[in-house]
Amino acid sequence: MRIDGRRLIKNIEDLGKTGLDAQGRRSRTAASDADKAARDLVCMWMEETGMRIAVDKIGNIFGIWDSPDNKDEEPFMTGSHIDTVINAGKYDGCLGVLAGIEIVRTLKENGVKPVRPVVVAAFTNEEGVRYAPDMLGSLVYAGGLDAETALKIRGVDGSVLGDELKRIGYAGSGEPGFARPCAFIELHIEQGPILDQEGIQIGVVEDLQGISWFEVTIEGRQNHAGTTPTAMRIDAGLAASKVNVFLRDRCLLPGSRTVATVGTIAFEPNAVNVIPEKAVFTVDLRNPDEEALSAEEHALMDYLRELEKTDHVKVTVCRRSRFKPVLFDAGIVDMIEKGAADRSLSCRRITSGAGQDAQNLATVCPTAMIFVPSIGGISHNPQEYTRDEDVINGANVLLDVALLNVSAPE
Amino acid sequence: MRIDGRRLIKNIEDLGKTGLDAQGRRSRTAASDADKAARDLVCMWMEETGMRIAVDKIGNIFGIWDSPDNKDEEPFMTGSHIDTVINAGKYDGCLGVLAGIEIVRTLKENGVKPVRPVVVAAFTNEEGVRYAPDMLGSLVYAGGLDAETALKIRGVDGSVLGDELKRIGYAGSGEPGFARPCAFIELHIEQGPILDQEGIQIGVVEDLQGISWFEVTIEGRQNHAGTTPTAMRIDAGLAASKVNVFLRDRCLLPGSRTVATVGTIAFEPNAVNVIPEKAVFTVDLRNPDEEALSAEEHALMDYLRELEKTDHVKVTVCRRSRFKPVLFDAGIVDMIEKGAADRSLSCRRITSGAGQDAQNLATVCPTAMIFVPSIGGISHNPQEYTRDEDVINGANVLLDVALLNVSAPE
Repeated sequence: MRIDGRRLIKNIEDLGKTGLDAQGRRSRTAASDADKAARDLVCMWMEETGMRIAVDKIGNIFGIWDSPDNKDEEPFMTGSHIDTVINAGKYDGCLGVLAGIEIVRTLKENGVKPVRPVVVAAFTNEEGVRYAPDMLGSLVYAGGLDAETALKIRGVDGSVLGDELKRIGYAGSGEPGFARPCAFIELHIEQGPILDQEGIQIGVVEDLQGISWFEVTIEGRQNHAGTTPTAMRIDAGLAASKVNVFLRDRCLLPGSRTVATVGTIAFEPNAVNVIPEKAVFTVDLRNPDEEALSAEEHALMDYLRELEKTDHVKVTVCRRSRFKPVLFDAGIVDMIEKGAADRSLSCRRITSGAGQDAQNLATVCPTAMIFVPSIGGISHNPQEYTRDEDVINGANVLLDVALLNVSAPE
Repeated sequence: MRIDGRRLIKNIEDLGKTGLDAQGRRSRTAASDADKAARDLVCMWMEETGMRIAVDKIGNIFGIWDSPDNKDEEPFMTGSHIDTVINAGKYDGCLGVLAGIEIVRTLKENGVKPVRPVVVAAFTNEEGVRYAPDMLGSLVYAGGLDAETALKIRGVDGSVLGDELKRIGYAGSGEPGFARPCAFIELHIEQGPILDQEGIQIGVVEDLQGISWFEVTIEGRQNHAGTTPTAMRIDAGLAASKVNVFLRDRCLLPGSRTVATVGTIAFEPNAVNVIPEKAVFTVDLRNPDEEALSAEEHALMDYLRELEKTDHVKVTVCRRSRFKPVLFDAGIVDMIEKGAADRSLSCRRITSGAGQDAQNLATVCPTAMIFVPSIGGISHNPQEYTRDEDVINGANVLLDVALLNVSAPE
């Protein structure tokens, strides 16, 4: 049994056409008009496939294919997200949702009568660009945060998530965690260079690195850029720059598996001839080992305390998000490996460098992920690309694992 | 003869009340509504003092006190600017304009019949926060830039200076350079710590350090913050941070008289989990010695070229503004020193760390400046403060120099 590759590729292309701005940049941040357009399209395809749509309180979309015979069984769930970063590619997240719909089509066309429902999920605000924390929809689904609190979260644009979900018509009534699955598998592009560099077709994701996000505010003294002697300056912008350089130096220490990113920054008053009084920036720290990740966090805090002494600045740190490293379900990981082997696809065990909805699902049911190669490891970028044959291979392995989960035991 | 201190202080307080935003921050960038409010107030005071108002094509305001007998003589000019940085103090620039009006009041009240007109000037866009280059009004007045080109300059907010001057009613008809003066004296706060630290009442400004502004754009590669190994990153934000640290290290070299400031910065796409693809920031370099300043510029360019190799980024540099160091007129400098001595005020020769309208006037007539102490050297900051007695001392020395210039030779 194999999925219809042309049909899946076409869906990816069409979904990729939503959320393009005037300059042709693709941006579908959570609960935006662009996100609504993408959600409407996905719901239409789910309904065409004969699935019923359920939306929960946090806006997660579930396409449910069940029957009177199996409707009381724990469903098999697959899926991902369709929100994007700013100026994004078209595979990140979307592949997992669209491949889920495609396997339901394939199962139906092949007359499969599943012993349990199949649910395809599209989770809200995975990227976390508009609302923090990221992976919010799956976090609420898994009970890691209550919906009422989550709906009150204020976005970087000042909007409130609950209001925006109402506005775009995706504030549902489903209680978080309903349709608790027997298993969850997420198909995703690697978003890293390993599979592409090693020429491997399928990544069997056995774990996921921990993620730590901070917002750091450094306060100095606003003063004249020309008349203030260097020795008298308290330059918040310079201190922020030192932190960025410090983080990179840490990552370059021999044996370090940490990656660190300062992705956002703002100076105040942000004038060419005024020494910055304030610098606000974010830090994204990741490491597959919990001990190493917290060591990294402590090193950063120590450095910031040191900066207060050496540069006379005031530093405030606010935790934006924290996820421990995740170990996926060994049984599901074996199923994926077997599926790849049966189709004689090359595969390897791999760690997810990115945060994924699967890490939240892993707290409620056996979970694992399938990766397919990202050319050049490029992601969160319009040049993000995965070869059609790799997309199709990944979806076929997902189909195999789904079959193992929905077939009656021989 | 002495000025009316209470009257001058009251004017400074009242002008300081214009341009306050909702948070009480004082911001009067050039040709804004706040700038218009301040211009209207200053013109009202000039007219109350019996001066006629002339506005030139670039929006410079001239309050002219002349008589049928002296109107054909070269005027004596004083003044400064009333535009401000964002979240500014109330003395920078305003002191020079308001003290100019105050000395005209004093000369009239004392029945002085000047042998030449007295002109008080308020020059457009001295701070350069909204439109680059800074000191634009005096630059055009002095013929350093033609008015037509200057009026087309686009501001950081996308506005066009000429349109904004029309909008606020200060697009005048006067040709740049009209009313060419016999001499120009600018009274200004030091904006630096030297007079305050040394407990000296009057700074006799004999020269002014050179200023070099650049806008630097660094382009890297947008990529995923979690999945991109450190070795594969091309982080434009990190490269920008390295430049900021490099500039400070240069300023800390033994014997360096350079000051350097990165006052503005912006990352793209500016998302917490995306490696910055682009960083745009400004550099403000100053040094009193032309050779040392250009050496500093070359060191920066060499470092940026080096960054292109080491960090694989693309760097584009755009010159925003450049002023050579200025030597003021020895005769005027002597007059100021004599005026201070006659009033038994402590004084010292000093270099202006800031750019000043006086540096442009120095290219058309004998020019110098009078500084009064800035407490703690704080400026471009709401805490900017100069003691009332120092304000009054400065205005009285300006009065003395004016008298020397407008009295009939004995």
